[in-house]
Amino acid sequence: MSDMTWFALLSTIAAILGMAIGVLLPAYAMGRAISSALDALARQPEAERSIMRTLFIGLAMIESLAIYVLVIALIVLFRNPLLEYLIKP
Amino acid sequence: MSDMTWFALLSTIAAILGMAIGVLLPAYAMGRAISSALDALARQPEAERSIMRTLFIGLAMIESLAIYVLVIALIVLFRNPLLEYLIKP
Amino acid sequence: MSDMTWFALLSTIAAILGMAIGVLLPAYAMGRAISSALDALARQPEAERSIMRTLFIGLAMIESLAIYVLVIALIVLFRNPLLEYLIKP
Amino acid sequence: MSDMTWFALLSTIAAILGMAIGVLLPAYAMGRAISSALDALARQPEAERSIMRTLFIGLAMIESLAIYVLVIALIVLFRNPLLEYLIKP
Amino acid sequence: MSDMTWFALLSTIAAILGMAIGVLLPAYAMGRAISSALDALARQPEAERSIMRTLFIGLAMIESLAIYVLVIALIVLFRNPLLEYLIKP
Amino acid sequence: MSDMTWFALLSTIAAILGMAIGVLLPAYAMGRAISSALDALARQPEAERSIMRTLFIGLAMIESLAIYVLVIALIVLFRNPLLEYLIKP
Amino acid sequence: MSDMTWFALLSTIAAILGMAIGVLLPAYAMGRAISSALDALARQPEAERSIMRTLFIGLAMIESLAIYVLVIALIVLFRNPLLEYLIKP
Amino acid sequence: MSDMTWFALLSTIAAILGMAIGVLLPAYAMGRAISSALDALARQPEAERSIMRTLFIGLAMIESLAIYVLVIALIVLFRNPLLEYLIKP
Amino acid sequence: MSDMTWFALLSTIAAILGMAIGVLLPAYAMGRAISSALDALARQPEAERSIMRTLFIGLAMIESLAIYVLVIALIVLFRNPLLEYLIKP
Amino acid sequence: MSDMTWFALLSTIAAILGMAIGVLLPAYAMGRAISSALDALARQPEAERSIMRTLFIGLAMIESLAIYVLVIALIVLFRNPLLEYLIKP
Amino acid sequence: MSDMTWFALLSTIAAILGMAIGVLLPAYAMGRAISSALDALARQPEAERSIMRTLFIGLAMIESLAIYVLVIALIVLFRNPLLEYLIKP
Amino acid sequence: MSDMTWFALLSTIAAILGMAIGVLLPAYAMGRAISSALDALARQPEAERSIMRTLFIGLAMIESLAIYVLVIALIVLFRNPLLEYLIKP
Amino acid sequence: MSDMTWFALLSTIAAILGMAIGVLLPAYAMGRAISSALDALARQPEAERSIMRTLFIGLAMIESLAIYVLVIALIVLFRNPLLEYLIKP
Amino acid sequence: MSDMTWFALLSTIAAILGMAIGVLLPAYAMGRAISSALDALARQPEAERSIMRTLFIGLAMIESLAIYVLVIALIVLFRNPLLEYLIKP
Repeated sequence: MSDMTWFALLSTIAAILGMAIGVLLPAYAMGRAISSALDALARQPEAERSIMRTLFIGLAMIESLAIYVLVIALIVLFRNPLLEYLIKP
Repeated sequence: MSDMTWFALLSTIAAILGMAIGVLLPAYAMGRAISSALDALARQPEAERSIMRTLFIGLAMIESLAIYVLVIALIVLFRNPLLEYLIKP
Repeated sequence: MSDMTWFALLSTIAAILGMAIGVLLPAYAMGRAISSALDALARQPEAERSIMRTLFIGLAMIESLAIYVLVIALIVLFRNPLLEYLIKP
Repeated sequence: MSDMTWFALLSTIAAILGMAIGVLLPAYAMGRAISSALDALARQPEAERSIMRTLFIGLAMIESLAIYVLVIALIVLFRNPLLEYLIKP
Repeated sequence: MSDMTWFALLSTIAAILGMAIGVLLPAYAMGRAISSALDALARQPEAERSIMRTLFIGLAMIESLAIYVLVIALIVLFRNPLLEYLIKP
Repeated sequence: MSDMTWFALLSTIAAILGMAIGVLLPAYAMGRAISSALDALARQPEAERSIMRTLFIGLAMIESLAIYVLVIALIVLFRNPLLEYLIKP
Repeated sequence: MSDMTWFALLSTIAAILGMAIGVLLPAYAMGRAISSALDALARQPEAERSIMRTLFIGLAMIESLAIYVLVIALIVLFRNPLLEYLIKP
Repeated sequence: MSDMTWFALLSTIAAILGMAIGVLLPAYAMGRAISSALDALARQPEAERSIMRTLFIGLAMIESLAIYVLVIALIVLFRNPLLEYLIKP
Repeated sequence: MSDMTWFALLSTIAAILGMAIGVLLPAYAMGRAISSALDALARQPEAERSIMRTLFIGLAMIESLAIYVLVIALIVLFRNPLLEYLIKP
Repeated sequence: MSDMTWFALLSTIAAILGMAIGVLLPAYAMGRAISSALDALARQPEAERSIMRTLFIGLAMIESLAIYVLVIALIVLFRNPLLEYLIKP
Repeated sequence: MSDMTWFALLSTIAAILGMAIGVLLPAYAMGRAISSALDALARQPEAERSIMRTLFIGLAMIESLAIYVLVIALIVLFRNPLLEYLIKP
Repeated sequence: MSDMTWFALLSTIAAILGMAIGVLLPAYAMGRAISSALDALARQPEAERSIMRTLFIGLAMIESLAIYVLVIALIVLFRNPLLEYLIKP
Repeated sequence: MSDMTWFALLSTIAAILGMAIGVLLPAYAMGRAISSALDALARQPEAERSIMRTLFIGLAMIESLAIYVLVIALIVLFRNPLLEYLIKP
Repeated sequence: MSDMTWFALLSTIAAILGMAIGVLLPAYAMGRAISSALDALARQPEAERSIMRTLFIGLAMIESLAIYVLVIALIVLFRNPLLEYLIKP
């Protein structure tokens, strides 16, 4: 196989597996946060507002972690800065 | 095997395994969220509305994580940007 | 072995193993959701309606995750878009 | 070994192992659901009807996941669509 | 080794290991269900009838999962449909 | 090594390891069931009869799973149907 | 190495490791059963008799699982039916 | 493959997998912190202010750990100091 | 290496590792049983007698499992029945 | 590949993976500490001051552990003392 | 390497690793037993005597399991019965 | 590759991975200790002094364990005593 | 490499890794025992004496298990009985 | 590579990894002990003295286990007794 084939192939595999792995615990953490929010709602229905605000900020911060992985996966798939070392020389 | 064969084969395998792995913990997280929602319903039936709203937003955010993996799997299967490096030269 | 043999063989294996893995935690999550639903029923029999509705929406969303894997497994088995790169040239 | 031997052999192994793996957590989930149903029965014997209905729908949905794996295993063993690429050319 | 030897040998190993693996969690699930049934009996001895009915249906459904594996193991050992591709040509 | 040696050797190993693995969780499940039965006895000594009946049916069903593995191990050791493909030709 | 050496060597290793593995969870299950029996004794000393009976039947059934493994290990060490295929021809 | 290809390829893979792994437990920790915050809110709604402050400082410190990994991943992808040893000589 | 060396070496290793593995969970089970016995003693000091009897029978049965492994390890080290196939011919 | 390439490549991979692994449990520990702090706040709002002080000192000490790994990763990436043995001779 | 070197080397490694592994769960079991004994002492100080007796018998039986491993390790290091097959011929 | 390259490379990798691994459980232990300290503070605010003293001594002792690993990592990176055997002869 | 080098090298590695592994669970067991002792002290301060005695005997017995591993490690490092087979002939 | 290089290299790696592994559970055990001590302090502040004494003795005994590993690591790095077999002949 040529160099480019190896590069494209393994980048693809790494991108997809990295994304799959990097999504696991954020999903779990979201599940846990939502589960606590529902629990809190059931105990203090009148505090719905501050519960909601806390939950959404939390979910956003967890989502940000999964986005880091997504960003790096997309950089690798669409615009890998290390590619220029391979094409130029 | 030719380069293309390797590429197509391993991309296929990575897509299917990545999807299978990336679905695991989101499913678990959904199970946990739903389980808490049912628990909350049993304790505060009159708060059904805000429980439902919180649950659906939560499920949607967890689903989004699984969708990230699905999107990357579909990009790899149908329109892999790294393929053009392989075909042109 | 010819290229096609490898391709068909490994796609088959990946499809079946991916399906088997991708079914694991959705099944667990369903078990958990149903278990909570039964628990909620035992505590609040009169809330059966909203419990049922929540449970079925939840099961459907979890099932959707397993369906993603099934869909990709069937795409791979019956109509793999990457196959055309192998047959044409 | 000829191509066909490899294909038949590894398909067989994948089918049996995939089935064995894909049955694990559905079985666990069923155990959990039944366990909760019995618990609920002990606490609310008069709600037997709705408990039973929920349990059976739940078991059926979990069973469906195991059936997905069984279906793909049987497709692979009896009528693998990828086989035609191997036999024709 | 001849092709047939490999085929027979690895099929045998896969059958026995697949059976051994596929029995693990169904056994665990049964243990859990029975354990809950006994618990329920101790709490509500007068509900013995509906507990028993639920337990037996549950055990039968879990057993069905182990039977799927057994069936595929026996198909592989006694009448593997993929064998005809090996013997005819 | 001749074909027969490989076949006999690996069948033997698979039989013994498969048996050892297939016994693990059934044993655990039995332990759990017995443990619950003793617990139930301590709480409801007068329900001994129905507890005993439930326990023995449960143990028998778990034992049946281990027997499946034993049966396949014995088939492999004493009368493997795939052997005839090896000896005749 | 000659065929017989391989056969004797690997059978020995499989026998000892299989025995060691197959003993693990039965031991754990016994520990659990005994632990529950002692717990039950402390709560209901006057039910000692039926507790003892249940415990001993349970221990015997768990022991039976370990005996299956022992039997197959001894068959392999002392009188392996597959050996005759190796010695005669 | 040339040296540069190996370097670029494996750096890419390490960056994406490292990011995916390094995100796992921070996500879990965030989920736990948010979950406790919601719990605390439900118990002491009037302490919302100090709860919020503690939560945000905590999330920031956990995020900092994930940022360490992100920084090193970006250094490796865009400006690896060890690259100069490879290009100059 | 000669055949005998391999045989003696690997038998030795298997014996020691098998013994080490086979001792793990019996030890754990004993710890659990003793722990329950002490717990029971603290709750019902006057039932010391039947607690002791139950404990010792239980420990003996767990010990028997470890003895199975020890016996097979000693058979392998001192008087392996499969050795005669190696020495005679 | 030249020596330098190997060195630079594997150092890079080790740095990124080491950082990713070394961040896992510190993140978890922080999550646990923050979670307890929020719990303590909810129970004793008036002790906010000493809780905060303890929490920040604790987070700093956990952070210090992650910093150790970061420091060694940066030493390896930017100024590895073992490099001089490679360049001089 | 000569046969004797391999034999001595691997026996040494097996002895030390087997000992290290075989000590793990007995240590855990002891910790558990002692922990229960202290718990029982705190609840029933006046039953110190029978608690102590039970604890010491238990510790001795757990120790016996570790001794089995130690004995086999020492047999292997100092007086391995399989060595005579290697030296004589 | 020359000897020195191997030595420098693998020492670097071992140092960074060892540090990363050796930091894991100390971090966890710190998290646990801090968590208990905060818990204790919430229950006995007036015992802050002795709680603080105990916590700091404990954190210092746990930190000492991580320092052992750091020290050995730095010895290996900066002043490895085994290097002189390599350079002199 | 000469025989002696291999022997010295692998013995060293086995000694250090065996020691590291063999220390793990004894440390855990000690932690558990001490933790229970402190718990018992807090509940029954006046039973300090018998608690202390039990704790120290327990710690000594757990320590003895770690000492077994240390002894074998030191035998291997300083005075391995199997070495004489290597040096004499 | 020369013998000495291998020896120095692998000893270094074993020392650092062994230290890293051997520190894990002692750290955990310390965390657990400290955590219980803080718990005990919060419940019985006036028993601070005997709690402290017990804690420090316990921490010292756990530390001793980590020291065993450190000692062997330092022996290996600075003064390995097996080295003389390598240098003299």
